[in-house]
Amino acid sequence: MHDVEALAALIHQHRDEDHAQILAELQPLRGVEVAEVLNAVPSLEETAEVLTMLPLERAIEVCNQVLLDRRGPLMEQLPPEVAGKILNGMASDERTNAVRQMCDHTRRVLLPQLSAAAHREVENQLKYPPGTAGELMATEFVRLLPRMTVGEALNQIRAAARNRESVYACYIVEPESDKLLGAISLRDLVMADAAKPIVEVMRSNPVTVGVLEPKRNAVEKISKYNLLAVPVVEISGRVIGFITVDDALDSMVEEQTDTVLRMGGVEAGALDEPYMATPWSILVRKRATWLVLLFLGEMLTATAMGQFESEIAHAVVLALFVPLIISSGGNSGSQATSLLIRALALGEVKLSQWFRVMRREFVSGLSLGLILGAVGMTRICIWQWLGWYNYGEYWMFVAATVGLSLVGIVLWGSLAGAMLPFVLKKAGLDPATSSAPFVATLVDVTGLIIYFTVAKIVLHGRGL
Amino acid sequence: MHDVEALAALIHQHRDEDHAQILAELQPLRGVEVAEVLNAVPSLEETAEVLTMLPLERAIEVCNQVLLDRRGPLMEQLPPEVAGKILNGMASDERTNAVRQMCDHTRRVLLPQLSAAAHREVENQLKYPPGTAGELMATEFVRLLPRMTVGEALNQIRAAARNRESVYACYIVEPESDKLLGAISLRDLVMADAAKPIVEVMRSNPVTVGVLEPKRNAVEKISKYNLLAVPVVEISGRVIGFITVDDALDSMVEEQTDTVLRMGGVEAGALDEPYMATPWSILVRKRATWLVLLFLGEMLTATAMGQFESEIAHAVVLALFVPLIISSGGNSGSQATSLLIRALALGEVKLSQWFRVMRREFVSGLSLGLILGAVGMTRICIWQWLGWYNYGEYWMFVAATVGLSLVGIVLWGSLAGAMLPFVLKKAGLDPATSSAPFVATLVDVTGLIIYFTVAKIVLHGRGL
Repeated sequence: MHDVEALAALIHQHRDEDHAQILAELQPLRGVEVAEVLNAVPSLEETAEVLTMLPLERAIEVCNQVLLDRRGPLMEQLPPEVAGKILNGMASDERTNAVRQMCDHTRRVLLPQLSAAAHREVENQLKYPPGTAGELMATEFVRLLPRMTVGEALNQIRAAARNRESVYACYIVEPESDKLLGAISLRDLVMADAAKPIVEVMRSNPVTVGVLEPKRNAVEKISKYNLLAVPVVEISGRVIGFITVDDALDSMVEEQTDTVLRMGGVEAGALDEPYMATPWSILVRKRATWLVLLFLGEMLTATAMGQFESEIAHAVVLALFVPLIISSGGNSGSQATSLLIRALALGEVKLSQWFRVMRREFVSGLSLGLILGAVGMTRICIWQWLGWYNYGEYWMFVAATVGLSLVGIVLWGSLAGAMLPFVLKKAGLDPATSSAPFVATLVDVTGLIIYFTVAKIVLHGRGL
Repeated sequence: MHDVEALAALIHQHRDEDHAQILAELQPLRGVEVAEVLNAVPSLEETAEVLTMLPLERAIEVCNQVLLDRRGPLMEQLPPEVAGKILNGMASDERTNAVRQMCDHTRRVLLPQLSAAAHREVENQLKYPPGTAGELMATEFVRLLPRMTVGEALNQIRAAARNRESVYACYIVEPESDKLLGAISLRDLVMADAAKPIVEVMRSNPVTVGVLEPKRNAVEKISKYNLLAVPVVEISGRVIGFITVDDALDSMVEEQTDTVLRMGGVEAGALDEPYMATPWSILVRKRATWLVLLFLGEMLTATAMGQFESEIAHAVVLALFVPLIISSGGNSGSQATSLLIRALALGEVKLSQWFRVMRREFVSGLSLGLILGAVGMTRICIWQWLGWYNYGEYWMFVAATVGLSLVGIVLWGSLAGAMLPFVLKKAGLDPATSSAPFVATLVDVTGLIIYFTVAKIVLHGRGL
C-alpha cells in the first residue's frame, strides 16, 4: 500500500530538484491514487508542477477523477497550453465540472485553448441549471445508426469510444434528428451474431431521463433498473448525453452527507470544501444562520413559561422537570420525523397517505407516552420513598402531573414529527431540511404549555 | 406509464378467472416493474399465483429483483418444484437472499430441489456473517485462463455468462488454485486484437476485497475506483465471487436511510419492513428502547436542577430561560456532531487530528456563543424597556446571566458535539449511532449546571 502523506511530503521537498524519483513513485499508482496524493500536497503551485511533469495521458487520467480537489484553481496554475491539452482530453462531464470551478478570467484564457467541439460542449453544458440531469451528464456517447449490423456497431464502438465510460452508452438514433430509437449494451452486442441487424438486438423504448429533470431522478432510475448508464434526452426525444452508474454513486455519497448536515441543522450546501479547509469565519457564518433562527424560535419558550411564572413561584418543584419533559417531546418528535423522512424517500409512504400515518402515530405516540409517563412517575415515587429528594407535601400530585404531561407531550411530539415531513414535501421542499431541529423547537414551546396546563388542573387548590 | 395500483387491483379481482388479461398487461413491463406490481398485491397467495402463471424465464427475472418484497415467504407459497426451478435460475446472490428469508422448514423442502451446484453455493454463502463482503457477493464470475487469447476469452464469455451481471466480472485465474491473476473488462476485450494473449491485455494486480471484510469496504472501493465489479478473494488469493456496482448502489440506499434513522434516535436496523407494513407493536418496541434510554439520561436534568431549587425559588425568573439555554447547547452540539460525522465519513478528517478539530471548534463555538449571547441579552433588554415583561429589579443581571451562560454552553456544546464522533469511532462504533440525541442529553445536563453556576456568581447578594 502506498503512503499518501509520505508521497505528498516527497513532492514538497523535491520541488526544485530532479523529478525522476517522484515520477517513479507515482508510476505504479492508479489515477485516483495519484489524485489522493495531490490532494495531500498543501501548495497549489507544487501540485500543478507535478501535473505538468506527468505524461499528458496520465495527467488527463488524474484530472478526470471526481476525487481530485481544487481542479479549477489547479488549471489556473498550469501554463494555458498544458491546461488546454488536459481539458481537451478529459471526459465531457469532468471537463465542465473543472470549468465551473474556474474564475471568469481563467475561463476567458483557457476556453479558446479547447478544440472547437469541446469548447461548444462546455458552453452548452454550463447552461443547465445546477441539480438537473443536464448538469451531471457526459455527452460523448456512441452514436449508432439503425441500418447497422451488430458487427458494424462493434467496429464503430472500437473506432469511436473516446473514453472508458462512453462504451457503456451506445444509443441507436434516427440519422438526422438524433431521436433516440433504442439502446444496446456491450454485453448484448458481444453475445449476438455479428451479421444480425442491430434493430433486432437493441432494447427499444429504453429508460431515459429528461435533461431538465432533477439529477436525483437519473440516480433513482439507474438504481431501480440496474443500469450502467441512462440516456439524457430533450423533450423532442433527441438524445444529448448520458449519466453513468459511477456518477450516480458519487452523487449519492454527496447527497448522503448533505442529509446528515441538514438533519443536524447546518445550512444545506454549507460546506463545498472539506471541513479542515473551510476558514472558520465561513464555518461560523453558515452555522450561525440556523442557530440564530432556532434561537429566535426557542425564545417563545421563555414567553410561554412567563405566562406560568406565578405557578412556578408557588411550586418551584415543577421547574425541575421542565428539561425532562420537553426533551422527551423533542426526542419522540425526531424519531417520528426520521421514520417518515425515510419512508417518503423510499416511496413506502405516499403523500396522500398522511391520514393513515397520523392514525398510526396516534397509537404509537400514545403507547410511547404511557411508557415514559410510567417511568417518570416511578422515578419520582422512588426518590420520594427512599428520601433522596423531597418533592413536598403534594408529591403524588407532582408525579401525576409529570406522568400525564409526558403522555400528552410524547403523543403530540410523535404527531407533529410525523406530519412535518408531509408538510415540507407538499410545499415542494426536501423533507430532510432541518426537520429534526425544527420539530424540537415546535415541540418545546407547545410542550411547556401542555405541562403547565396539566399542572394547573392537577394541582388546583393544592398550593397553586 | 403503467399504473401499479390498477394492475394490483386487476390481479386481485381476476384471481379465479382466465389469466390471459393479466399476462397481457404484465407482458410489456420490465422485470422490476412487475416486482413493483406484485409488491402492491396484499395477498401472498395471489402474488404467488401470478408468479406461477408467468413463463419461467420471466418469473426468474422478477424474482431476481432486489425490489421484490417477501421473496422468501413467496417461495413458500409456490409448489416446491416451481420454486426450485426459479431458484435454480436466479443470480447466486439473490438466490441466497431469498433463502435467508425462508423459515427452516421451507429451506429443508426447497434446497433439495436445487441443482447440486446451486445447493452447495447457497450452503456456502449462508456461512458468511451478515455485513461482510461474502454476504453480498455473487459467485458466477467468468473464469478465464492465462493461456487464452482475447478471441478465446470472448468465446468463453459468450458460452459461460449465466446472467447479465457476470459478464462484467471476468477474472483470469491460476488453473488449479483459482488464485486471482488479473481482471479484464468487456470493453478492453472488445477493443483489443483477438489474437493477442489475454495476459497482455488484462489488468494485473486488480483492486480486490476480502471475503470477511465489511461490505462497506467493497462499496467504497467500487465508488473510489469507478469499478463495475470488485472481485471477492480469500486470504489465499483465491477468487470466490464478485460484488457489482448495482449491489453497491442498493447497499448505499439502505445505508443512507439507516443513517437518517440513527440520527433520529431509532434503533439501528429497526425497520426491515416498510413503515406501513410494520405492526405498531414492533414499531413501538423498537422506538421505546431508545426513548427510554434517553429519558433515563435526561432524568439527570431533574437531579441537576434539584441542586439549585433554592436559587430558583429566590429568582423564579431564572427558570423561564432554562429551555432556551439548554436547547441552544443541544443545537450547537448537533451541528458540530453532524459536521464531524460527515468529515470523518468522507475521510476529510483523520482520527489523529482530534486536537486540531478541538482548536477549531473552540474558536467557532466561542464565536457562535457570543452571537447567541448578544441576541439573548438584547431580547431581555428590549422586553424590559418596552414593558412587555418585567424581569424584576435586577433584570440587567438576569440578562448578563443569560448572555454569559449562552457563551459557555454553546462553546461546550460545540466541543462535546465535535469530540463525540471521535470517541465513538475510536471505540469501533459508527459515529452516526444516535450521536445527535446523545449529545443533546449530555449537553442538557451540563448546560443546566453551567447556567445556574453562572447565575449564582452574577446574582450573588442580589436576591440569591
